[in-house]
Amino acid sequence: MKEYLKHHEWQIIEEGLDPHYNKISESVFSLGNGHMGQRANFEEDYSGETLRGSYVAGVYYPDKTRVGWWKNGYPEYFAKVLNAPNWIGIRITIDNQKLDLAKCKVEDFRRVLDMKIGLLSRSFAATLADGKKVRVESKRFCSMAHGEIGAIRYSITPLNFSAKATLSIYVDADVVNKDSNYDEKFWEEVYKEAAEGKAIVTAQTKKTFFHVTTGMKYVVLEEGKKAAFDRVNMELREKYAGNVIQLDLHEGKEMVVYKYAAILSSENHAKDKMVAACEQVLTEATTKGFDALLEAHSKVWAHKWDECDITIEGDIAAQQGIRFNIFQLTQTYTGEDERLNIGPKGFTGEKYGGSTYWDTEAYCLPFYLGTAEQKVARNLLVYRHKHLQRAIENAGKLGFNKGAALYPMVTMNGEECHNEWEITFEEIHRNGAIAFAIYDYIRYTGDDAYLAEYGLDVLIGISRFWSQRITWSSDKNKFVMLGVTGPNEYENNVNNNWYTNTIATWTLQYTIDSLAQVKKTHGERYTAIAKANNFDEGETTRWKEIISKMHYPVDERRGVFLQQDGFLDKELLRVSDLRPEDRPINQKWSWDRILRSCFIKQADVLQGIFLFEERYDIETIRKNFDFYEPMTVHESSLSPCVHVILASRLGYKERAYEFYLRTSRLDLDDYNNDTEDGCHITSMAGTWMSVVKGFGGMTVKDGMLHFNPFTPDQWKSYSFRLEFRERVIKIKISKDNVETILESGAPLEICLHGKPVMLKR
Amino acid sequence: MKEYLKHHEWQIIEEGLDPHYNKISESVFSLGNGHMGQRANFEEDYSGETLRGSYVAGVYYPDKTRVGWWKNGYPEYFAKVLNAPNWIGIRITIDNQKLDLAKCKVEDFRRVLDMKIGLLSRSFAATLADGKKVRVESKRFCSMAHGEIGAIRYSITPLNFSAKATLSIYVDADVVNKDSNYDEKFWEEVYKEAAEGKAIVTAQTKKTFFHVTTGMKYVVLEEGKKAAFDRVNMELREKYAGNVIQLDLHEGKEMVVYKYAAILSSENHAKDKMVAACEQVLTEATTKGFDALLEAHSKVWAHKWDECDITIEGDIAAQQGIRFNIFQLTQTYTGEDERLNIGPKGFTGEKYGGSTYWDTEAYCLPFYLGTAEQKVARNLLVYRHKHLQRAIENAGKLGFNKGAALYPMVTMNGEECHNEWEITFEEIHRNGAIAFAIYDYIRYTGDDAYLAEYGLDVLIGISRFWSQRITWSSDKNKFVMLGVTGPNEYENNVNNNWYTNTIATWTLQYTIDSLAQVKKTHGERYTAIAKANNFDEGETTRWKEIISKMHYPVDERRGVFLQQDGFLDKELLRVSDLRPEDRPINQKWSWDRILRSCFIKQADVLQGIFLFEERYDIETIRKNFDFYEPMTVHESSLSPCVHVILASRLGYKERAYEFYLRTSRLDLDDYNNDTEDGCHITSMAGTWMSVVKGFGGMTVKDGMLHFNPFTPDQWKSYSFRLEFRERVIKIKISKDNVETILESGAPLEICLHGKPVMLKR
Repeated sequence: MKEYLKHHEWQIIEEGLDPHYNKISESVFSLGNGHMGQRANFEEDYSGETLRGSYVAGVYYPDKTRVGWWKNGYPEYFAKVLNAPNWIGIRITIDNQKLDLAKCKVEDFRRVLDMKIGLLSRSFAATLADGKKVRVESKRFCSMAHGEIGAIRYSITPLNFSAKATLSIYVDADVVNKDSNYDEKFWEEVYKEAAEGKAIVTAQTKKTFFHVTTGMKYVVLEEGKKAAFDRVNMELREKYAGNVIQLDLHEGKEMVVYKYAAILSSENHAKDKMVAACEQVLTEATTKGFDALLEAHSKVWAHKWDECDITIEGDIAAQQGIRFNIFQLTQTYTGEDERLNIGPKGFTGEKYGGSTYWDTEAYCLPFYLGTAEQKVARNLLVYRHKHLQRAIENAGKLGFNKGAALYPMVTMNGEECHNEWEITFEEIHRNGAIAFAIYDYIRYTGDDAYLAEYGLDVLIGISRFWSQRITWSSDKNKFVMLGVTGPNEYENNVNNNWYTNTIATWTLQYTIDSLAQVKKTHGERYTAIAKANNFDEGETTRWKEIISKMHYPVDERRGVFLQQDGFLDKELLRVSDLRPEDRPINQKWSWDRILRSCFIKQADVLQGIFLFEERYDIETIRKNFDFYEPMTVHESSLSPCVHVILASRLGYKERAYEFYLRTSRLDLDDYNNDTEDGCHITSMAGTWMSVVKGFGGMTVKDGMLHFNPFTPDQWKSYSFRLEFRERVIKIKISKDNVETILESGAPLEICLHGKPVMLKR
Repeated sequence: MKEYLKHHEWQIIEEGLDPHYNKISESVFSLGNGHMGQRANFEEDYSGETLRGSYVAGVYYPDKTRVGWWKNGYPEYFAKVLNAPNWIGIRITIDNQKLDLAKCKVEDFRRVLDMKIGLLSRSFAATLADGKKVRVESKRFCSMAHGEIGAIRYSITPLNFSAKATLSIYVDADVVNKDSNYDEKFWEEVYKEAAEGKAIVTAQTKKTFFHVTTGMKYVVLEEGKKAAFDRVNMELREKYAGNVIQLDLHEGKEMVVYKYAAILSSENHAKDKMVAACEQVLTEATTKGFDALLEAHSKVWAHKWDECDITIEGDIAAQQGIRFNIFQLTQTYTGEDERLNIGPKGFTGEKYGGSTYWDTEAYCLPFYLGTAEQKVARNLLVYRHKHLQRAIENAGKLGFNKGAALYPMVTMNGEECHNEWEITFEEIHRNGAIAFAIYDYIRYTGDDAYLAEYGLDVLIGISRFWSQRITWSSDKNKFVMLGVTGPNEYENNVNNNWYTNTIATWTLQYTIDSLAQVKKTHGERYTAIAKANNFDEGETTRWKEIISKMHYPVDERRGVFLQQDGFLDKELLRVSDLRPEDRPINQKWSWDRILRSCFIKQADVLQGIFLFEERYDIETIRKNFDFYEPMTVHESSLSPCVHVILASRLGYKERAYEFYLRTSRLDLDDYNNDTEDGCHITSMAGTWMSVVKGFGGMTVKDGMLHFNPFTPDQWKSYSFRLEFRERVIKIKISKDNVETILESGAPLEICLHGKPVMLKR
């Protein structure tokens, strides 16, 4: 855990440049706008520790799979999030000395991410080897108003000298992925040009043939007036285009570079028109200018914050934490493009690759349901419907047939790209989350028609998978599910993971119910679906049999569900028994030791109780929480939020608050010592759930919003907004009062602490 | 399965060159002499499918580990068997056309491995593009009389022309491993020279700095007289040295190249004296000449066959099979060098890497016990004693301490070099085999003193490991062993594998007994051992507790031991239920499907029953065999031999014979479709056991040899020899008679069909 960032309600602030923290800050201060994103790398060259990263949504590279030991069924490649061409670069040389913060004396370094308007600022004074001292201030943003525009204002003021200087302003597609499996470069040059004031490079990904055109124009002002150049050279190298400007810096006079970048993807443009389109975007950007662009961008952010801000009074660390989570989620996924999804690192790093994990359905969907228009969440569901055929093919590779669908563990385009047998082949509970998301969406929105339109196809495929994957144990006289990995990945290849068995039979029942409903309400469509899926009602006979005779491991004596068969054979220790030097166990212990220990990476049985909370009485929840939580090391970022919610139900206020801080400040305080790889974007939605579903006690029952809120002792009050069925409501909760306001839409009855309340505007 | 090789009692014969079978034949026709080995590659260049392979015992390269997903505790590198410099090369050009069997018309191709004298011959007639036709006959061997010498007689006769020809005779260290993880070359040049009639290259392995000096001299005769050369050029390239001879070929006149190679390793020579030593070996070889070298070599083979031949009358395929197995084992490991061990592919391929697996103790030891001087088997045990410290370090990496030892899954120098968590960390039964081998050796030889000298140290280390690895289950009120992979690798991370639990408690008891015995018979040594190992007798309290309260899964109803907890939850199918297109399942099914199926890769419970046969009555053996065998796919080469032995006990003669053919002709008939990678050397020892322990019914009880032989219906008779406690006895078994002859040593009482028989010379 590191606590080098200043607490502030709206800003993330770093003071002083500590090179050891630079990669962490590069992640935390990342910018994005749903279309593209950029780590907080320096504009100028930096020879210290850095992970340069620029990303364009939906653009990926299928990197040839690297494994030690091949298993049948492994995919041929891993779809990597691509490090895209660099559009921020401004290389500065003063009297033949490169401005490089790793090689200067740096003073007054300050990096600020203003979350309110999505603006990254950086300022410092640097003394070069020969004593020349400059002050630099840079500001940049990725426009939320125009997703293809990035803009930079970069100012240099010589403090104690006048001298010749060179500015290289460029775009560069000669970039690499740090996590490339075979040290390959993923980009090839298609086109480049450089003219005075302008440079454009179109690069193409190998194998996938995505084109990305990155262009830039710039203006250089001295003291507010167009600067005089000694000379401008065009610089063209492989995959690289720029201008090299020779000019004079004058002591005390501020030189400002406005750099406007246009980043276009062939996902949105015809390949042969991209350069022209790029020119157009550049013209638009330069015409508007930095300030107007920033204003338009800020307006979008103001609107976003109106929709989804959560305020917390009396606890700045908690306030900063939740806003940081909301900020990152908002810049990662806007929901406008149904081809996109929410990668685990968003636009803040390249690690893990793929864009879509079960995180989307299990953690992110509720956030978008609560904070955005209905179509945003709907697009996330449709995304999976589009991939249904691929999921059926994926199941086929594992020996399933007749339309059984297994959604991939990690994907970009619907194809599985993960390659660890115990995860790829066995962590099949992901299929359940995808089914549950359909239910969750309909429960929240009331959009029953979704079932007939898209939902049922997916449910049939998933139910067929469960039906084939579950086998009959003559020994137990029950159905069993062998060889799985549950949400707790610190167990592999276990039998009868309670969570997986539970969500599997739930899916079967929900599919049966949904079939009946669609048949009733959309008879024709039902017939079409049955035909298209070659579905016969007889299939449900086995499903019903499974539902009625499924084995769920339990410990009757303790009154708890067992994470899997044989769990009680373990030595039941508590996390508090571990020596500090053993933690985190995933960095300290060998894998076999982790597997045979009782320690839990992330909520597993508790995850199931969270999803199906209405099935369990409070004592059952308590027994399970009290049994499992002490064994849980929370080494997955997805774990604490579930614990906030259940602890809240149980009145464990102090525990709930601790888990909340852990989830909300996970990256700000680098809890798991891995933020340098990128931020944990998907778990940020869990933080939002912690407040709304945890402290706020929000649930939806029979189409009605319920709240059972409480206020953590550390807070004076907190508030959040919800979009719900064409209303916007705002809830403000303090220790002695709950204020509910209908901000827009028709009157709505909600339930507060068990009592109905009618909200009117 | 392929049956392209001719059946013959003493020879392996291939007629006609089928390029699809070439890599298989390269494996099958391999030569070796314990010091080095060579696949049956062609001397001349070949542009068709080939796996060129030359190997020098003990010389390896630590190839950087390649994994998809790193786990704590993985080794940094995998010790690869190295493809060593090529010493066989003779490149032939006739009228500027290269002799390359992939590009000629080839007639009368015949490849013969004469196992009686260890000679590989090859002959063919080749027609070049321009119609020139030559006859070639080559013979070669790796001298068993002088381990550093290889010799080739290569004859060319122009059948329809006279022409200018070029002979390049060379040594070449610019070789690669096909299985290199990062396409790296493993050799660097240290020294090279070429002079008329001679070339020498010393190459050094990267990282490990082994030196191998490969030298050659040659003589070229035409019609028995020194051939006249137009010109001889020296050829020196990187890591390559040779002579290029220009000469005339005359129609109908035989030109013969005698090439003598010396292959020296820094394991046996000071690095700075290797070139001189190489010169000396070359001088010795050329002085003696091909025929005399071959004679000396043949004599050693005659002696070896005297020691270990098994004859089978009436079944040439079976006879050829067992001789092929014995031949390969004999050329792989001679037992003279205690630093060496028996790699899974011997000198026939590079796959798998490492030189030592549990195969050595579980399968190979009995062969060397029965067929070689006592010191050979003893050296195999001492090899593990030398690695004890490394095994303790290895266990330490997995969190064990206080002298607990875990021997590696795969090793060259005692360090683990495997990297699959479910194998490396969990297939810990290997430790049991290493303990059992000590017992097996002493049981056979009566060399009790071995315990005090070396055995006890190893037993203490292994018992400490079991003691720490086994945990208490309060739920079962028993000790349990969680998270293991048994011999049946088609189950991973299971709890309470019956075999592993059984061999673990057996080890604890054997260690307790051995401690008591050494204390009694070697009091001083006992004290020293206890001190050196920091051993306290109190440690055995827990060991005894574990022995008395260990959990062994059983099915009382069926009267069988259960392979692991939960085995009965599986769908209990039979291999005969599988569709042909599903087999072999390891090539057709995804890993999860294999894991949750009941199908067994190799004997697991039956392996335990085989080792501890005396504990079980025949009905128990039968029930377990009848239960497990039908589920066993034998996709490990180590499986069928155990089944021969148990089937023999049960009187399942026909099944025993089928399993015997499968194990003995595994590579000759390419049963598992993988012989092209190399032969299955270690399982060949299992073939020997099949005959001696299976059909011959040999066991050792209380220091006495017992035989309960029978003769398969397909055989008239069979015979084998055994070295046993300074005697050599020969057993000849036919349907109606068993002949036992004491060939050397003092009188010996044995037990035949339960009755004592006194053998005298």
